[in-house]
Amino acid sequence: MINYPNGKIRKTQTTSASSSVKNRGMSLEKIINGANKFYLEQGRAVIHKKPTPVQIVNVSYPSRNKAKITEAYYQTPSTTDYNGIYKGHYIDFDVKESKNRTSFPLKNIHAHQIEHLRSVQAHDGLAFLIIHLKVDDTYWLLPYEKLAFYVKRAVKGRKSMTHEELKKESLPIKEGFRPRLDYLSAVDLWLEKT
Amino acid sequence: MINYPNGKIRKTQTTSASSSVKNRGMSLEKIINGANKFYLEQGRAVIHKKPTPVQIVNVSYPSRNKAKITEAYYQTPSTTDYNGIYKGHYIDFDVKESKNRTSFPLKNIHAHQIEHLRSVQAHDGLAFLIIHLKVDDTYWLLPYEKLAFYVKRAVKGRKSMTHEELKKESLPIKEGFRPRLDYLSAVDLWLEKT
Repeated sequence: MINYPNGKIRKTQTTSASSSVKNRGMSLEKIINGANKFYLEQGRAVIHKKPTPVQIVNVSYPSRNKAKITEAYYQTPSTTDYNGIYKGHYIDFDVKESKNRTSFPLKNIHAHQIEHLRSVQAHDGLAFLIIHLKVDDTYWLLPYEKLAFYVKRAVKGRKSMTHEELKKESLPIKEGFRPRLDYLSAVDLWLEKT
Repeated sequence: MINYPNGKIRKTQTTSASSSVKNRGMSLEKIINGANKFYLEQGRAVIHKKPTPVQIVNVSYPSRNKAKITEAYYQTPSTTDYNGIYKGHYIDFDVKESKNRTSFPLKNIHAHQIEHLRSVQAHDGLAFLIIHLKVDDTYWLLPYEKLAFYVKRAVKGRKSMTHEELKKESLPIKEGFRPRLDYLSAVDLWLEKT
């Protein structure tokens, strides 16, 4: 976590020369896809994004070679977007970006995703979220085992985690050059602790 | 493996009362999806089919609520169709059906799928194929570590495995009631051997 002078949260500035400038404007998904490609090339892990689920209604065959889908709709995914294997562990996560200035709304996470992460953890997989807080341009790995408490709290109480809670429960993901977000180093920290 | 009288390979007959009748006409993919649903409900494993990858070219918004995809094309998957976690192991496989009467053509398996299975095994995941031989209506779990030899042989030699080779290298998957194909029991046999 980066500490700013006067304890103030710095606003994102396009003129900033901070290390995070290079990621600006690049979606978290693209950054993670880039990291996964790098990890695969280096033989460090095999992690892929699942395709977006699409319900196909109509297909035409304008030529003999290629089917053209002419009517289809986006479907709600039944799981998280990413999974794979790292150091012999099954790894499963979703990525979330939050523009909120003070808290992380739990409605960002669908009920079926929570249920999926819970199942993965019950089978000794590594289940977590990667979260980008836009307000201070920081990245966090939040294990499902920590998130579970706040999901339970949300049933009758507060429907979000404060940024302080999120940072306390998460492992920081540092920005670098290759890959830009080395989130597996945060996984390493987590594995050391457990 | 079922043994037939006289050592003959029985042809599939629609009038047959064998235990495999119930699966007839049902694609292997549907059978495996059903097994995965059953395993998930029983808390035995968390294994899902990945969505079919689709390249989306055009989207229209006929109503405010729902995006309609009006032009899209099927893409070649870069990995296998199935993955998940079982007994703490990362599990990764594809399913193949073969109508061939005497051999299993290796061109059924795309190069990128071979490469993916190789990577998974290198990371200590369980990488394999589930194969349905239509000629005698039998199901087999072929570990990638066994398949690798025949892939290598195919570079300069025979481009297929004979059914005898396939059955020798694979674990049989028995048909039953729930799930219809209990392929995780074949995984158990494999784990016992290694």
